[in-house]
Amino acid sequence: MKIDVAITPESFSDKDLEGKIVVVVDVLRASTTITAALARGAEKVLPLATVDKVKKSAKEYPQGKVLLCGEREGIRIPGFDLGNSPHEYEDSIVQGKILLYTSTNGSRMLVKTKKARKVYVGSFVNMSAVVKRLVMDGIDCFIVCSGREGKFSLEDTVCAGMIVDRMRENSPKGFVQLTDEALVANIVYEHFSNDLNKMINQSFHGRYLVELGMKSDLSFSISLDLYDTVPVMENGGLIKSTP
Amino acid sequence: MKIDVAITPESFSDKDLEGKIVVVVDVLRASTTITAALARGAEKVLPLATVDKVKKSAKEYPQGKVLLCGEREGIRIPGFDLGNSPHEYEDSIVQGKILLYTSTNGSRMLVKTKKARKVYVGSFVNMSAVVKRLVMDGIDCFIVCSGREGKFSLEDTVCAGMIVDRMRENSPKGFVQLTDEALVANIVYEHFSNDLNKMINQSFHGRYLVELGMKSDLSFSISLDLYDTVPVMENGGLIKSTP
Repeated sequence: MKIDVAITPESFSDKDLEGKIVVVVDVLRASTTITAALARGAEKVLPLATVDKVKKSAKEYPQGKVLLCGEREGIRIPGFDLGNSPHEYEDSIVQGKILLYTSTNGSRMLVKTKKARKVYVGSFVNMSAVVKRLVMDGIDCFIVCSGREGKFSLEDTVCAGMIVDRMRENSPKGFVQLTDEALVANIVYEHFSNDLNKMINQSFHGRYLVELGMKSDLSFSISLDLYDTVPVMENGGLIKSTP
Repeated sequence: MKIDVAITPESFSDKDLEGKIVVVVDVLRASTTITAALARGAEKVLPLATVDKVKKSAKEYPQGKVLLCGEREGIRIPGFDLGNSPHEYEDSIVQGKILLYTSTNGSRMLVKTKKARKVYVGSFVNMSAVVKRLVMDGIDCFIVCSGREGKFSLEDTVCAGMIVDRMRENSPKGFVQLTDEALVANIVYEHFSNDLNKMINQSFHGRYLVELGMKSDLSFSISLDLYDTVPVMENGGLIKSTP
């Protein structure tokens, strides 16, 4: 079983995803927030690439069924119901709702994964659930880091590396083969494994969110195994599954 | 002084290079071979993006002045004088010559760096010389990994990380600031610092060259400080400088 990682979001093509299980990682904050929203009772999350697509899509649903969700530059989009902080997605607000969701990095990445055999959303908050699901599937997988505006992000690489690490731990010896990029993600995770808090607070993206007054999103995003939920793509929307 | 690294070749734009010192790294084998060729007496190396450009450019020079150099898929281009193995670039062959050079990754990357303030070529074989030069310059620098066909390569990341490591060692404490990507390159270098040989032999690109019968290029490419030469870009061509 081969595990590959795309450390930066521009370093793979559609062809690389064909026939594979793809895990989309965007720790700050799309994959954390989507997982929390589904765990708390949202019916579905529709990732959309642009603000316009969210507004257009909203017209196709009865009033009260959907929420307009997402951010640009970390801040809630004007006129939208929710931004991108997992704290906003309370049970009472999201229960039974369809979330039309756009974010700068994660939702765009989710839209890019059409050629994959299956798409999951991975983060620290559902780490064990994702690993369990991938080990059960037992076929080649490709973990893609959403990054930040097309570029590298530390927290996504560390999260991808932790998935790799856990998969090695939970598979028979020699069963898992890593590409060079997966190996590097694993090395970077090992370096930070004893202090995820330091890692996320020193990361470029983390410091940006702290400046915006969203420090509590950082500690939430590195809370391991808060949820047993694996968001899985079905007909263009993410729904809840448990491994 | 800020140090940035582009771990993958698609993760930066022209704008990121503006006003900066850029170091292009392509351990296997462009940056190694170009450094060796200039150290052994070549007058200039002209990096060109395509085979056609090499052939066209050759017509502008008197016969005997230029050599047609480069590879595709690791193999010498048909009709060319030299491939991309540093062993081919002997003193007696390259002395006083202008090398019209195209390779799959490195030469294309060199062509992409036009917006930079200065461009150097970095590798293990000229590690100390490059670091000395960068420390002397003392301004923000950007180390770009040429990778493999637009994708990540382990040996370039490790080499970039070693440059970062040496620059920290040779600068006053606190003077050097690393971006997240430079920090990660440094971590990956530290992981392999005691066994570059194992690293290059297990790398995807290294294994490919071994399959082609070019194993000796691997050990050559990780030979530290063979040369005191820093290739530097001037008017579109690389010439020899010493720090």
